[in-house]
Amino acid sequence: MTQTVDQKASAAASAASAADAWLSSFQQALTARDVDAAAALFADESYWRDIVSFTWNIITVEGRAGVADLLRATLEQVDPAGLRVTEEPAEADGVITAWIAFETSAGRGSGLLRLVDGKAFTLLTTLDELTGHEEPVNGRRPSGVRHGAFRDRVTWAESRAREATELGYTVQPEVLIVGGGQGGIALGARLRQLGVPTIIIERNERPGDSWRKRYKSLALHDPVWYDHLPYLPFPASWPVFSPKDKIGDWLEMYAKVMELNYWGSTTCKSAVRDGDGWAVVVDRTGPDGTVQEVTLRPRQLVLALGASGLPVVPEFPGREKFRGDQHHSSAHPGPDQYKGKKAVVIGSNNSAHDICAALWEAGADVTMVQRSSTHVVRSDSLMDLGIGDLYSERALAAGMTTFKADTIFASLPFRILAALQAPVYDAIRERDAEYYRRLELAGFDLDFGDDDSGLFLKYLRRGSGYYIDVGASELVANGGIKLAKGQVAELTEDEVVLGDGTRLPADLVVYATGYGSMNQLAAGIIGQDMADRVGKVWGLGSGTTKDPGPWEGELRNMWKPTAVDGLWFHGGNLALSRYYSLYVALQLKARMEGIPTPVYRRADVHHAQ
Amino acid sequence: MTQTVDQKASAAASAASAADAWLSSFQQALTARDVDAAAALFADESYWRDIVSFTWNIITVEGRAGVADLLRATLEQVDPAGLRVTEEPAEADGVITAWIAFETSAGRGSGLLRLVDGKAFTLLTTLDELTGHEEPVNGRRPSGVRHGAFRDRVTWAESRAREATELGYTVQPEVLIVGGGQGGIALGARLRQLGVPTIIIERNERPGDSWRKRYKSLALHDPVWYDHLPYLPFPASWPVFSPKDKIGDWLEMYAKVMELNYWGSTTCKSAVRDGDGWAVVVDRTGPDGTVQEVTLRPRQLVLALGASGLPVVPEFPGREKFRGDQHHSSAHPGPDQYKGKKAVVIGSNNSAHDICAALWEAGADVTMVQRSSTHVVRSDSLMDLGIGDLYSERALAAGMTTFKADTIFASLPFRILAALQAPVYDAIRERDAEYYRRLELAGFDLDFGDDDSGLFLKYLRRGSGYYIDVGASELVANGGIKLAKGQVAELTEDEVVLGDGTRLPADLVVYATGYGSMNQLAAGIIGQDMADRVGKVWGLGSGTTKDPGPWEGELRNMWKPTAVDGLWFHGGNLALSRYYSLYVALQLKARMEGIPTPVYRRADVHHAQ
Repeated sequence: MTQTVDQKASAAASAASAADAWLSSFQQALTARDVDAAAALFADESYWRDIVSFTWNIITVEGRAGVADLLRATLEQVDPAGLRVTEEPAEADGVITAWIAFETSAGRGSGLLRLVDGKAFTLLTTLDELTGHEEPVNGRRPSGVRHGAFRDRVTWAESRAREATELGYTVQPEVLIVGGGQGGIALGARLRQLGVPTIIIERNERPGDSWRKRYKSLALHDPVWYDHLPYLPFPASWPVFSPKDKIGDWLEMYAKVMELNYWGSTTCKSAVRDGDGWAVVVDRTGPDGTVQEVTLRPRQLVLALGASGLPVVPEFPGREKFRGDQHHSSAHPGPDQYKGKKAVVIGSNNSAHDICAALWEAGADVTMVQRSSTHVVRSDSLMDLGIGDLYSERALAAGMTTFKADTIFASLPFRILAALQAPVYDAIRERDAEYYRRLELAGFDLDFGDDDSGLFLKYLRRGSGYYIDVGASELVANGGIKLAKGQVAELTEDEVVLGDGTRLPADLVVYATGYGSMNQLAAGIIGQDMADRVGKVWGLGSGTTKDPGPWEGELRNMWKPTAVDGLWFHGGNLALSRYYSLYVALQLKARMEGIPTPVYRRADVHHAQ
Repeated sequence: MTQTVDQKASAAASAASAADAWLSSFQQALTARDVDAAAALFADESYWRDIVSFTWNIITVEGRAGVADLLRATLEQVDPAGLRVTEEPAEADGVITAWIAFETSAGRGSGLLRLVDGKAFTLLTTLDELTGHEEPVNGRRPSGVRHGAFRDRVTWAESRAREATELGYTVQPEVLIVGGGQGGIALGARLRQLGVPTIIIERNERPGDSWRKRYKSLALHDPVWYDHLPYLPFPASWPVFSPKDKIGDWLEMYAKVMELNYWGSTTCKSAVRDGDGWAVVVDRTGPDGTVQEVTLRPRQLVLALGASGLPVVPEFPGREKFRGDQHHSSAHPGPDQYKGKKAVVIGSNNSAHDICAALWEAGADVTMVQRSSTHVVRSDSLMDLGIGDLYSERALAAGMTTFKADTIFASLPFRILAALQAPVYDAIRERDAEYYRRLELAGFDLDFGDDDSGLFLKYLRRGSGYYIDVGASELVANGGIKLAKGQVAELTEDEVVLGDGTRLPADLVVYATGYGSMNQLAAGIIGQDMADRVGKVWGLGSGTTKDPGPWEGELRNMWKPTAVDGLWFHGGNLALSRYYSLYVALQLKARMEGIPTPVYRRADVHHAQ
C-alpha cells in the first residue's frame, strides 16, 4: 500500500521530530553531565560506536551500562555540544535513521543515529576534523602560489625538491609508514593534508608494484565505487574491476600528484623505541643501485604491511624431491609456460581459483586440491545484493556518496553484523541455487561462514576462506578444473600425494596456502617481543574459525592505539583503508599538536590466532 | 523587497509554464516542419548558437531570418524531438532561463534557453552524445575484466602493450593530434572514450613538459575550478593556482591513467592530403635516442599546437652587437643568474610582468619597456567579479557544476558578450580604482580593451594584450620595476635604445614580444598553401585591434569544420579545451562511423591578422 503525499509528509515530520527530540534530550543530559539520563535514552539492546570523538579510540560499547561507563570517563573532557540532525531523517520498518553533527572540545564530528521506539538502537559518532587544523580542501584549498612580490620566494618545485633532500636526513618525519600499498598511500595522503611530515617506505621500487608483480590475470574483485582513494576518486570512465596494472598505475600517479614522500626500494631492517619515538633503520636503494643505510626517527610508527606480506607454505614432506616448478601463489608468474602441462594447485580460496582459471585458459591440465571448505559467492550477486545499496551507480543515482556509504557501514555494530548479513546471503543462496547445486555436485566443499553470515564477516573475522567468483567456479562445476579433496601427505618427484593415497601427477605445484598473520609480519619489523606486546592484529574475537575470542567488537589493533604507544596498524581493503585513514591521521595529528588524547579503554591484548 | 514564499512559488510556476509553453510551440513547429512558425518564436534581437546538434558546425545565427535559414537547411535531416526542460526554470530581471534537452536523428542534445516577453532571446543547443556510441562512463563504464573463462583472454596490460606496438605501425589511427599540451590531451581523452583510435604527437619528451620548461615562477592564472580536464577533475586538495610543475605532473598522470597513445619526443615533418586521409611524416625518438621516421595515415588531422608555439622576436637593429644575454620570454630560464644585473624586458603583457617580477625578487635591476597599452586586472578581482559566479567554491556550493558553468558561458552570444562584460569591468575598475590610479601615476599605459569590455574579450579577439596581476603591478606602481615607454630603435653592445633616444643599460634583454599566429604555426606542419586555404585561426572578426572583420561570431576555425576536409583545430585555455573537446570528438566520431554530418554554412576564410 503506497502512502499518500500527506502520509509521507506526516511520517517525515514525525521522524524529524523524534530525532530532534532525542538529540535534544541527549544534548541536555550531556551538558548537564547527567550520565544516567543520557544512558536512559538508549534501548536495552543498544550499541554506541565511537571513532575518536569521545574516546580517542575506536570502540563499541553496549547497552545503557556501556554508554554510562563511556560517558563517565570522557564527558567532562570532550564537552560535546551542538548535537543536531544535518538532513531530513528517514523512517523505515520502525527504525528512524538520522545523520547528525556535533562539536567537541577538540573538533567537529558527525555520525549516524538509529532510533527504535524513541530509544537509541545504534549510535555512531566520529571525529572528522580538529579545530584549528582543518584540512585545506575545497574552500580552504591552498593558493598554490604566493601572490605578490617576495625576495624569499621558493617555488613549489623548489619546495618539493628541498623536502626530498631534507626529510629523513636533516629533518625527521613525525610519522613513518612502513608499507606503500593502498593503506600506506591513503594514510599518507591524509597526513599530508593535515600537515604531518610523513615518509612512506616500500620495498618495491614503484608505488603499485605490489599489484603489478602478481599473476597477470589478477584484477580487483571489489567494484570501483567501493575502491576510491581519499580526495581523488576514480574518474567516471574507470572500469568496474581494475586490472592489476591499471590499479598499479593509479597508485603510482596518486602518490605523485598527492605529493607523498614515498621511498621505494627501501626495506626496513629494524624498529626500536628510542625515547618518545622510534629509531628505524632502513636500507634505501638509489636509482644507481647503491644502497644507503638511513636511520629514521619518527615519533609515530605505522605498519601498513597488508595481509599478503608473509607467504605461508606448509612443510609438506618431499618438497625437496619434487622436480617440477613449485611456488607460493604470491610468486606465481602466470600460466603462459604451462600449456599442456599438469598443474596442481593446493588451496581453494581466491588466489587458488584465479590461478586455476588462468591455467585452464592457457591450456594446462589443472587440479585444485581443496583442503577445507570455501565460501563462494558470484561477483554479480555480491554487487547487486551485497553492496549495491551502498556502492553502485544506482546508489549514486539515489543520492549516496562514498562518505555516507562508508559511514552507514561503519554504523552497523559488529555484534549484530552477522545477523544483519545472514539474510543477504540467504537471498544470494536462493538467487544462485542452481549454481551452488552444480558446484556441490562437482564435489566442491561449500560454506557460507560458520554461521552463514557470508563473505564480509569471513573477511573481518579471518581475512580468508572465500572466493568471489569471476569465472573459475563454472570450470569447477563443469570439470574444466578438476577437484581433489583432502590434505597433502607428501610430494614425490612428480606427484602430489594426498592423505587418502590419491596421486596427482604434476609438472607445477602452486601453494595457494595463504599468508602468515599480521602480527608475525609485524614481528619482522618491530621484533618478536614487541609483537608479543601488541598481540593479534585483525579479527573480531567472534569465536568462529580462525577468530578466537574473547569478543572485542572491533578489529583487533586496527586503526587505533595499541598496547605500544606510538605504534599503529593501518590497512584493510580499499574501502577500509580509505575510511579509516582519516581517523588514524587525526589521531596522529592530535598527538603531533599536543592535543590531549585520553584513550578510553585501550583494548586488551590477545594472542590466540 | 523580499518575496513571500507564495510569491516565489508563483513566480517559479510562471517561469516553468512560460518555458514549457515556448518549448511546446517550438517542438510543434519543428515537427510540422513549419520554419516560419518556429522562427516567429524568436525575438527581433535574438541569437541561436548551435554546437553540432543541428548544424554539424559551431555557429551562431541571428534573428528570425537567421533561425529560419538554419532550420530550412537542417530541419528534415535533424528531425528534433522531445524538447523539454530538465529542471526548474529560473526568472530574474525579466529573463526566464531554462535548461533543456532534446533528441535528434543522430543523438541526444541539451542546451540553455533564455526567454524575454515570451520570445527566445538566446538559445544554445549542443549535441552531447551519438545514439549507439555513448561514452562508456558511469552506468556504462566497462567491466575492466571479462568475467568467465576464455581461452583467448588478453589482459588489459597485454592489450595496451599490443596497442603500443601496432598503432601507427601496422594499424593506422583514425585521428592524429599534433600537439600534446592540454588541448591535445583533453581531446585525446574524449576520443578514447568514444572508441576512436588516436595518436597524440608531442615534440617534448613527456606530457607536461611544455609547462615544466618555462620560467620557474610560472603558475596558472586561471583558478582550479576553471581548469578541470574531462572525466577526472582536480581533487579537493588541489591549489587554486597550479604551479607549472604541478600542472605538468597532472598532465603526465592524466595521459597515463586515461590511456592515451602519447608519442613524446616526436616531431612532425610534413602533413599532406593522401586520398581521403593524410600522410603525416614524423620523427619519433626512442628511449635509446635513436630517431625513427614514421609515416602516419590518419583520416583526420587535428592541430592542437597551442598559442605559444612560434616565438616572435622583432628584427631590432643591433641585436647581433649586444654582448649580454638575450632571449625570447619562452626561452627565459628564470632570474637566478641575474642578481645585481641590469635586466631590460621588452613587452608589457603576461610574460613580461611575470618575468620582471621574478627578476626583481632575485635582486636584479629591472626595466620593463612598454610598447603599447596593456589591460591589467587583479587576480582577486577577476576571480570574484569576473568568474566567481560560475567557477568558484561559492558557485559549487550554490549547485553549479563545471558542465553547467561551461554551458552558461557558451550560451552567451559573442555578438553581445562585450556589452555583457563591460559592466563587470566597470565594477572592477571601481573596486580597484586606487590601484589603477597608482599604476597610471607610475606612467603605465592601461586599457580595458578597445571598447572597455575587458580581459576575456581581449583573449577571444586576439589572445594577447593583458596581464592578470598576481603581484608585478605593485612593483610597477612603486617603481620596483622601472618603466620605460616607446618602441625599440636599436641595441648597442650593452644598451637598449628607444625611439626617443632613451638609453637603457642592459646585461640581459628578454623579448616578451609574443608569438606568431596559429595559422603561421600550422603552416609549419601543413605547408603554406594549405594554411592559406584555411586562413586565420582564432579571433571573432570584431573589427577591434588585431581582430579585423568581417564579423564571424565564432572563433575562426576553432573546433569545427575548416575549409580543408579532415583538418581541425583544437585548443584554447583549459576551460575551452575541456568544453569543446567533447564536440570536436563527436564530430570526428560521427565521421568515423559514417554518420551523415552535413555542415551548415561552413565559415568563410579570412586572412587579415
